[in-house]
Amino acid sequence: MTQSSAPSDRFRVIDVIRKKRDGLELSRPDILGLVNAYTKGDIPDYQVSAWLMAVVLRGMTRAETAALTDAMLHSGEVLDLSSLASARVDKHSTGGVGDKTSLVLAPLAAAAGVVVPMISGRGLGHTGGTLDKLEAIPGFNVNLPVAEFRRVLEACGCAMIGQTAEIAPADRKLYALRDVTGTVESPYLICASIMSKKLAEGIDALVLDVKTGSGAFMKSEIDAAFLAELMVETGERMGKQVVALITDMDQPLGNMIGNALEVVEVLEVLRGRGPDDLRELSLELAGWMLHLGGVAKTVAEGKDQSAELIRSGKALQKFQQMLALQGGDPEVVDAPQKLPRARHTREAVGGQSGYVVSMECERIGTAAVILGGGRERKEDSVDPAVGIVLHKKVGDPVAAGEALATLHYNDDSRAERAGQLIVESCRIGDIRPQNKTLIHRVIRSGEKN
Amino acid sequence: MTQSSAPSDRFRVIDVIRKKRDGLELSRPDILGLVNAYTKGDIPDYQVSAWLMAVVLRGMTRAETAALTDAMLHSGEVLDLSSLASARVDKHSTGGVGDKTSLVLAPLAAAAGVVVPMISGRGLGHTGGTLDKLEAIPGFNVNLPVAEFRRVLEACGCAMIGQTAEIAPADRKLYALRDVTGTVESPYLICASIMSKKLAEGIDALVLDVKTGSGAFMKSEIDAAFLAELMVETGERMGKQVVALITDMDQPLGNMIGNALEVVEVLEVLRGRGPDDLRELSLELAGWMLHLGGVAKTVAEGKDQSAELIRSGKALQKFQQMLALQGGDPEVVDAPQKLPRARHTREAVGGQSGYVVSMECERIGTAAVILGGGRERKEDSVDPAVGIVLHKKVGDPVAAGEALATLHYNDDSRAERAGQLIVESCRIGDIRPQNKTLIHRVIRSGEKN
Repeated sequence: MTQSSAPSDRFRVIDVIRKKRDGLELSRPDILGLVNAYTKGDIPDYQVSAWLMAVVLRGMTRAETAALTDAMLHSGEVLDLSSLASARVDKHSTGGVGDKTSLVLAPLAAAAGVVVPMISGRGLGHTGGTLDKLEAIPGFNVNLPVAEFRRVLEACGCAMIGQTAEIAPADRKLYALRDVTGTVESPYLICASIMSKKLAEGIDALVLDVKTGSGAFMKSEIDAAFLAELMVETGERMGKQVVALITDMDQPLGNMIGNALEVVEVLEVLRGRGPDDLRELSLELAGWMLHLGGVAKTVAEGKDQSAELIRSGKALQKFQQMLALQGGDPEVVDAPQKLPRARHTREAVGGQSGYVVSMECERIGTAAVILGGGRERKEDSVDPAVGIVLHKKVGDPVAAGEALATLHYNDDSRAERAGQLIVESCRIGDIRPQNKTLIHRVIRSGEKN
Repeated sequence: MTQSSAPSDRFRVIDVIRKKRDGLELSRPDILGLVNAYTKGDIPDYQVSAWLMAVVLRGMTRAETAALTDAMLHSGEVLDLSSLASARVDKHSTGGVGDKTSLVLAPLAAAAGVVVPMISGRGLGHTGGTLDKLEAIPGFNVNLPVAEFRRVLEACGCAMIGQTAEIAPADRKLYALRDVTGTVESPYLICASIMSKKLAEGIDALVLDVKTGSGAFMKSEIDAAFLAELMVETGERMGKQVVALITDMDQPLGNMIGNALEVVEVLEVLRGRGPDDLRELSLELAGWMLHLGGVAKTVAEGKDQSAELIRSGKALQKFQQMLALQGGDPEVVDAPQKLPRARHTREAVGGQSGYVVSMECERIGTAAVILGGGRERKEDSVDPAVGIVLHKKVGDPVAAGEALATLHYNDDSRAERAGQLIVESCRIGDIRPQNKTLIHRVIRSGEKN
């Protein structure tokens, strides 16, 4: 087919669609042109959705992925936090069940002298969201304007807010279109979406927690490692230090699931208590943040510093300081009973004795959604009080009639369904399973799969 | 990803998109649901364009292709011509340069007693369109309502009109979307588009002329044969007799290109004269139409009957009858000078002597568009008078300074560019090339590639 050489936008965009359809590599101007025209409303959804499907099925090269990330990043405001003396480091998780490490890490790394300008999202489906957890704290405001975000960062070294209209508007528009056109499931598009939003925070380094297992978006480790490597290389191409940890999501992280309950567990960890897996992963991620942020020579040294900041109470103090600066009730730190509490509790009891051999992690996340603690649809509201406290994790012995979990609920019939789901999710067997490692792999730049 | 089981249209459509994206076979209800919802305006363009791109890149099974054709066919009116005593047979060409066989075949097959209810399209790009050729005849009306179309068919056995709003509206809507989303180039979508429109004519049998070569939509014979076999099998699955001839489009068909000029050449063929290739292909296609229509026992017999109908003048008489019934000036038949004529002519002269070794057929079609005889864009108007008369075809000897073609034109600068293009399109060499066969293959049902 001959192509017109007319320089009109319309013709250019269809050429970009055809090029991707035919498996050719797009140039940086091709991608920039498409993203900019779409963000401005100069090209219609139906052209972009055809292009997105071609990307899903044809894939992208590393150069194309970086160009797409760059175009989306620069579709809006990129924060300039260079006036702050310290290095700016963030952490991003691909999402899981009971994953509340962000709430531990922001104050912990800030207490060590790293600036953490964290912009997070809400939960959807079986995975929770950092903003929902923060909003379980009475008064806490996640909707700060950029100027106020900067003031909190200057005052205490960390701040946690939701996405603003100014940050990566191309991602917001593209994501809404992907959501209704079956084009969410592409590592290239997922990478560009995550990295464009994170790099818009004006950070120097990023620690990625890429979850794998039955409760993760990427069920297989191969898919998780592919995405992780893609994000690490994309970050490197954009001049940032990035590391990705592939971590286990075959069972919930920690014991508590549900927004207020997860804040309770965060406070436990910040007091040096809490469950082993959550504490171990938090220290590992903090170690990397401190190392990339230049305040620790090695990751091990960063972990030691972090453990000391917990022991000394400085991390908890930083958390309290951030709460106060963002309008939250600082008394919650010493009086967690001031957090929203469900009216009822009941136990989820299994019939068998033996060992917990495995948990269907996604279904446990779904049980929390059924209780009202998460969203099936974006427009759903969330009950901060409800949730699940697990008494057993994989490898634990369980007696017949012993409680697997306690449900915190406000609605009987929902609790009935959720309890059943939890019992069904736990497979009990006679042989104690081998301990699974929490951190499967670490991927740094230069390492290829 | 878990799928909602909600029965809403929205969810169903995204499930169909995902299924195709993931390479699974769609069911007949999947396809019918999507086509019907789109035709009614219940689902947006951006979902359908994502689905179309998934079809382009994943392909379709034969069952899916037939289901799509069926859904598009029944999106509008399907003519019921069963009240006419004779079999209804049509011919469709995938388009080429100088391809005017439709104007020969409709009256020729009708003169043999077959009913030809031909609904055609306009030209676009380097290929001409039957409607544009017919409209070069003063007064000829291609926009008959269905009732009038039926009256002409009853009166003379053939009628030639453009697509009406009632015929396959799903195809019109889908084609408009494909045109702007890079999703035209799929044999499955092309098959469904052609077959749904043709079968809506209420025909019993169809002869397909699938062009291959430098002037065809399908440049390679493999692609042409794939499409041909797909259309033949789709027709068979829908209970119709279909045959496809793979024919040469490495050079223009006949010597004349341009709307009024092509009508002149049609009249020549209907008088038993005209160029060999056009006459040969017309007789071959007519032979098949008569055979499938049941008025000739074999194709050879059908060709003999067709040749006799030309010799006796009955085919020409039928053409004149159709002209009169559709408002055209019947005197044109005996006085072709009454057709629109360009103000000027000039010769396109090559500098070399030797043999015409090859012609870049698409560029010759483009030369006709430059003269004003075709459209670059759908909304362009066409000058019926302009065109090209070729004096040399592949294999002909040519002396230095001898004319390759005569241009009929109304605009000097256009003639300049078109003449240059023609000269550049003809490769002259020392060795006479072997004769190419005009009809490469015949594909009938049951034959697979």
